[in-house]
Amino acid sequence: MSNLDLQQYNVRTDLALEAKEIAEQSGGGSPIPGIVSKTFEDNGITITELEVQNEQGSQAIGKVLGNYLTLEVPELRNQDTELQDRVATHFAKHFESFLQRVGVGKTARVLIVGLGNWNVTPDALGPLVVENVMVTRQFFELMPDQVAPGYRAVSAVAPGVLGITGIESSEIVHGIVEKTKPDVVIAIDALASRSLERVNTTIQIADIGIHPGSGIGNKRKGLTKEILGIPVIAIGVPTVVYASTIVNSAIDLMRGHMAANKADNNQVFGLMNQMDERERLQLVKEVLHPIGHDLLVTPKEIDQFIEDIANIIASGLNAALHDAVDTDNVAAYTH
Amino acid sequence: MSNLDLQQYNVRTDLALEAKEIAEQSGGGSPIPGIVSKTFEDNGITITELEVQNEQGSQAIGKVLGNYLTLEVPELRNQDTELQDRVATHFAKHFESFLQRVGVGKTARVLIVGLGNWNVTPDALGPLVVENVMVTRQFFELMPDQVAPGYRAVSAVAPGVLGITGIESSEIVHGIVEKTKPDVVIAIDALASRSLERVNTTIQIADIGIHPGSGIGNKRKGLTKEILGIPVIAIGVPTVVYASTIVNSAIDLMRGHMAANKADNNQVFGLMNQMDERERLQLVKEVLHPIGHDLLVTPKEIDQFIEDIANIIASGLNAALHDAVDTDNVAAYTH
Amino acid sequence: MSNLDLQQYNVRTDLALEAKEIAEQSGGGSPIPGIVSKTFEDNGITITELEVQNEQGSQAIGKVLGNYLTLEVPELRNQDTELQDRVATHFAKHFESFLQRVGVGKTARVLIVGLGNWNVTPDALGPLVVENVMVTRQFFELMPDQVAPGYRAVSAVAPGVLGITGIESSEIVHGIVEKTKPDVVIAIDALASRSLERVNTTIQIADIGIHPGSGIGNKRKGLTKEILGIPVIAIGVPTVVYASTIVNSAIDLMRGHMAANKADNNQVFGLMNQMDERERLQLVKEVLHPIGHDLLVTPKEIDQFIEDIANIIASGLNAALHDAVDTDNVAAYTH
Amino acid sequence: MSNLDLQQYNVRTDLALEAKEIAEQSGGGSPIPGIVSKTFEDNGITITELEVQNEQGSQAIGKVLGNYLTLEVPELRNQDTELQDRVATHFAKHFESFLQRVGVGKTARVLIVGLGNWNVTPDALGPLVVENVMVTRQFFELMPDQVAPGYRAVSAVAPGVLGITGIESSEIVHGIVEKTKPDVVIAIDALASRSLERVNTTIQIADIGIHPGSGIGNKRKGLTKEILGIPVIAIGVPTVVYASTIVNSAIDLMRGHMAANKADNNQVFGLMNQMDERERLQLVKEVLHPIGHDLLVTPKEIDQFIEDIANIIASGLNAALHDAVDTDNVAAYTH
Repeated sequence: MSNLDLQQYNVRTDLALEAKEIAEQSGGGSPIPGIVSKTFEDNGITITELEVQNEQGSQAIGKVLGNYLTLEVPELRNQDTELQDRVATHFAKHFESFLQRVGVGKTARVLIVGLGNWNVTPDALGPLVVENVMVTRQFFELMPDQVAPGYRAVSAVAPGVLGITGIESSEIVHGIVEKTKPDVVIAIDALASRSLERVNTTIQIADIGIHPGSGIGNKRKGLTKEILGIPVIAIGVPTVVYASTIVNSAIDLMRGHMAANKADNNQVFGLMNQMDERERLQLVKEVLHPIGHDLLVTPKEIDQFIEDIANIIASGLNAALHDAVDTDNVAAYTH
Repeated sequence: MSNLDLQQYNVRTDLALEAKEIAEQSGGGSPIPGIVSKTFEDNGITITELEVQNEQGSQAIGKVLGNYLTLEVPELRNQDTELQDRVATHFAKHFESFLQRVGVGKTARVLIVGLGNWNVTPDALGPLVVENVMVTRQFFELMPDQVAPGYRAVSAVAPGVLGITGIESSEIVHGIVEKTKPDVVIAIDALASRSLERVNTTIQIADIGIHPGSGIGNKRKGLTKEILGIPVIAIGVPTVVYASTIVNSAIDLMRGHMAANKADNNQVFGLMNQMDERERLQLVKEVLHPIGHDLLVTPKEIDQFIEDIANIIASGLNAALHDAVDTDNVAAYTH
Repeated sequence: MSNLDLQQYNVRTDLALEAKEIAEQSGGGSPIPGIVSKTFEDNGITITELEVQNEQGSQAIGKVLGNYLTLEVPELRNQDTELQDRVATHFAKHFESFLQRVGVGKTARVLIVGLGNWNVTPDALGPLVVENVMVTRQFFELMPDQVAPGYRAVSAVAPGVLGITGIESSEIVHGIVEKTKPDVVIAIDALASRSLERVNTTIQIADIGIHPGSGIGNKRKGLTKEILGIPVIAIGVPTVVYASTIVNSAIDLMRGHMAANKADNNQVFGLMNQMDERERLQLVKEVLHPIGHDLLVTPKEIDQFIEDIANIIASGLNAALHDAVDTDNVAAYTH
Repeated sequence: MSNLDLQQYNVRTDLALEAKEIAEQSGGGSPIPGIVSKTFEDNGITITELEVQNEQGSQAIGKVLGNYLTLEVPELRNQDTELQDRVATHFAKHFESFLQRVGVGKTARVLIVGLGNWNVTPDALGPLVVENVMVTRQFFELMPDQVAPGYRAVSAVAPGVLGITGIESSEIVHGIVEKTKPDVVIAIDALASRSLERVNTTIQIADIGIHPGSGIGNKRKGLTKEILGIPVIAIGVPTVVYASTIVNSAIDLMRGHMAANKADNNQVFGLMNQMDERERLQLVKEVLHPIGHDLLVTPKEIDQFIEDIANIIASGLNAALHDAVDTDNVAAYTH
């Protein structure tokens, strides 16, 4: 199963959660074999644990086998610092238990990789997390006897993008992994989602690594256990949406809205109502693309949003990775 | 006629060109009394001169009386530096003749005002132009005898936005105008357009000043001849679009596309086909707004686009304002 | 007494404290008539209150009549966030009582002016404070009934420098003052000091306004009560030193060091020992200037230092200006 | 021979040229065995070729065996764009012949390494060059048949500093070299010099690689042919000086100045005149260090200087590395 199949669907979401929703809609709402998911809510934060258990589930939603954890916080764009701290704390707790679940121990040495282009604001999430995260590996290398208990060796790099370095980011990371021998890679990347609502309000954690074609930057090579020889945990936040996806989702929302109002959607939407997701998206793209309408877009306030969410992830990682960093006050350890 | 009326239409474009298109569509394509416009094309650059001649025209398109000049360059987002230089040269020539037409002479002292928020990339156009434009007023003040011929006195300020300064930008500019006595203000502002296609590809010049509610930053007070006592030329570039507008325009484009393919749009689009622009937009907004979908959005590559277009405008202004700066090589005078 | 006289001395410090030290040294250590000063120390922070009481004192130290308060924190460059918070709290308390002493009341409306050039790191202090300070004037203007008690109307602008705007910063501020009618201006500026030791470790508060030639940017016009019609409180931090001053001070320090070691300085330093401050500085400048050695220099780590100290001042101002902001936790209100 | 010996001398310059000058002064001006150098001047640009031929020369000046080429351009800080273009062209020509001389062929694949910390302006030279240089390796990898003649494969990385990544930059580079197999590394680094005059006016090229302790960032591991297995060309620009070095050099300059004026320096400077360089520097450091005066300092205008010189080097590299880039118009190929 690969991203190619997903691209056939033309749905263009990097979130497993959305891919499952789409598959369920197409299937009339019935559960998808091979996909197990569980959702719980905590004071404005919705957490979903989703497992792609077998090849059938993978085919159905176009995502590789593995564990996906999603935090959805619709209010996260409101610049509420109290909420941000709470999300960082939640992130830390869930990330910590996610690490345990997928077998990454308390002392495993971590390399944090910030993927993306620091010159393109919606793609700068990874590099921004790297700038803000606490690195400790140098102390373990230079004076191992003097490191206080409760810390582990953490290093962090932002490998840049092909157009700036001339080198695939996966090659750079692979070289660094071979030299520095971490036990696990945590890769942060900006994603595309299907829905504007989820942009900068959702964080996905997955144990599947980074696959070619995912994220904003159209990678040609991945960062996976197969390639690097060590587990790769991926953290992603959708920061962009295709204009065509916005249109398509909106038509869907309008159909739902009218149906809820007892309208006859065949009457209201005509044949549009009978097209399936793919056909309609195909039509939208045919119309938008040739005249430059089908751009990847991002909210106007992206500068602030991306900084806020990078701080949340950096704070959360600090607390999750070091027992000595208190999950109750994670923000104090970042810039 | 005020922006309030425009907001009733809910069409949310700051471009006179688009407002006229919308009014024409609603009116079945017949010409609008009180609006005179002329379009010509030059090697990939479309120039439209539009005049709102009377109150009737103003009411019809929701724009104040005055002269509007628009440069449309669909290929401008392709980072083609040769094209950028050509657009700067065109801008300079048209801006120069525009100044003459509206009565601003060769030696009129100019204050360039860069409106907008430098911390919000799609709103940073004005401040970026101010950073890149050539200022000369200090030489006229400090050593008037030594200024080479072919220059005029130009000053430039970026007054910031209400949320950062606590002061309306129009008050700041008014104070500076009273102290420094320029003959004309040129105000640069980022705009909202109706169409993604025009974002970062279109430049509007108008002799109407800046009106409350226009631009990205939701001004409460304007910059007009009535307020400042001197003419105000506005230069605007659309850098954002409402998600709802994208959806609405896309449905329109789809109807055009199907009609061109001889489809029966009543059959394809049902009742949607019979809604007018306003009704349909109202429906789209009802659906998108409550769940956070109706954001102002901007292309992913906004950082690069905004820098390119700010350089074009700064280069063009340098050439248009100073005879000593050659319109054939405008780019050399900016950073 | 003007800055011109100070420039005759060629001592080039913007700190009253240093000017007094120099005058005392020249005078053999005896107290200077017309200068009253008081110093106290609090856990690593030295506070000096200095008053220039009359023309004689003013002539002697080359500073205008008025009150000067200086906070010296030698350890401030060590990036110790706990110390930074403590300095912000001290700054807030002393600034508050300074305001009272010079007659600025609890509800006086404040305009904060960040002088300097945001493109030149050691000159960017003022603009950085403006970016980080809390502005509230807009709430008093737009919804005066709804402002919570404990706040006053504060606005903030960074007027830029002559080379970027073509307008003296004092003219811009004057225009804004006339339009917005604040009761007092607080102007923040980066200064030159005589000693590297004080760079980025010292904050001076003075009720004398900003005078031509002071600060890094070589202003030609001042910001004073005479010009603006309202009191002007100046906050300054030395961020640069002349290379020649470093050399001259070092020779002085060496003489002190040798004398403390019972050396015969006439023997060690020859005629150099008998030159007075001005003669020796003249010699140093003659030697350094022609070959480009006499630059204004700043510590390598200036980016971090300037950000830290701008945060301290912004936090301190928030606490000093608004009773509702707690002086015990000032940092929480800045970015 | 290592940098440790140089540090014994406490002279702290990364320029071979200065190290030779110091050694010559100590030796009374006689030539140093094992050091061959040749200087020529071209319209404001002084070029020095210096070779450390054997161990004796290396010991004498504290620099490793190899070839050093230095461009000195005293006027380079004057923001004269015509001069900057000329320096870029000179740099390109000399760099190209330097490559040939040390055996790097026309088609050798190049990895450009920008050392230093992008958050510390005077240390950001390397990362800035990397941002501005043309990378082409991706075209050779992805579509080798379509690359136009006159180009070679160039990649570029800025590995960051230990405090940000937790990894020695040399380890990161080593990993990337092993994965991407370039034929030569070109490493750009900001240096410390002995003289303010040379800061941001001098460019050193050397075939010796990067050695521990050199540059601003106090590396613990080097980038050399021994470590990486391929030749390493180092490009360095002094951007900082120790305050103590400024003082010491100034005293030296004063002695020269007085001697030129027929003064008896024993009388003027006393015992100071008889101290040798090291003793006097030791005294200066004893005096300055304890009170925080002995900082590394940089000119106030460092932001502009570093940008200018990074552009010169990036332009020069583009022209030197690709025959298709014209050395007569090197600036057009950088941002």
